[in-house]
Amino acid sequence: MDVFKYIAEIPDFPKKGILFYDITPMMANPEVYNYTIDKMVELIKPHNPTKILGAESRGFFFAPAIALKMGLPFVPVRKKGKLPRETIDVNYDLEYGIDTLCVHKSDINKNDKLAIVDDILATGGTAEAICKMADEVDAEVACLAFFMELDFLKGRNRLNNRKVVSMFTN
Amino acid sequence: MDVFKYIAEIPDFPKKGILFYDITPMMANPEVYNYTIDKMVELIKPHNPTKILGAESRGFFFAPAIALKMGLPFVPVRKKGKLPRETIDVNYDLEYGIDTLCVHKSDINKNDKLAIVDDILATGGTAEAICKMADEVDAEVACLAFFMELDFLKGRNRLNNRKVVSMFTN
Repeated sequence: MDVFKYIAEIPDFPKKGILFYDITPMMANPEVYNYTIDKMVELIKPHNPTKILGAESRGFFFAPAIALKMGLPFVPVRKKGKLPRETIDVNYDLEYGIDTLCVHKSDINKNDKLAIVDDILATGGTAEAICKMADEVDAEVACLAFFMELDFLKGRNRLNNRKVVSMFTN
Repeated sequence: MDVFKYIAEIPDFPKKGILFYDITPMMANPEVYNYTIDKMVELIKPHNPTKILGAESRGFFFAPAIALKMGLPFVPVRKKGKLPRETIDVNYDLEYGIDTLCVHKSDINKNDKLAIVDDILATGGTAEAICKMADEVDAEVACLAFFMELDFLKGRNRLNNRKVVSMFTN
């Protein structure tokens, strides 16, 4: 199935010079969306994770569905102020300034092998931040799984030779 | 299955006097999460929707999985500046000030029967805003489906006798 046909390339969004990959047409086609989730499960399975982590917001288009298919716990990684219990907070760089991602402290521990799921691996800032959360509790990162990887942004370089799988590389 | 046992009640979050329902323990248990999605599908199915809409961010914990199980298109409703193509924008009231929700204009039309999915029906502001998007293109709202309904906040009153289903009422 040619999933890439269902990705709209939008030039100059969110600003001039950026080519944005719009995955909403893929999700509007249930056969293609289901096939995509199945393929990501296939990529993740050999790494034997115990939990699936997904980051706000676009990671939530993939991680919960993958966790449900694999019969594994889904753990949300959210922006600051959204999770009500004690959290592990990690700052990460944005183009201008910094932002903070959080995970419930009780949701990950040293016995876990985590699959970290997101839509796109770009510069790797978000993925690196979630790896730091894992490091903080000595959890293993089983793999990082992306729907798409933007190779030219060299996000893998920030991930210290961790296992990275992706459905598409561009 | 006693799903409610997997909802943590957190007093005084995000601020004093608010009782927050934390659904993350439910999602951390794959059997309970899967059962929850199945139950929501059961509630939605009799209303024969053609598309499943979910709102950023917690609606994304339910709507994509429900759409995948039902074999229906998933359409994301997002905050301003996130969707790259032409959008229908609707403002809604927050406690202080206003916020804007958006949907891609090409994603809903007058032939659609929409199921609008969210985690919690509180004051109904988000749900009402999404109904306005439907009205703008003369799409039918087949039903509004919530994991939980906070009855005392009277969110249904803002929804003009539309069909509302929810797994829990509190």
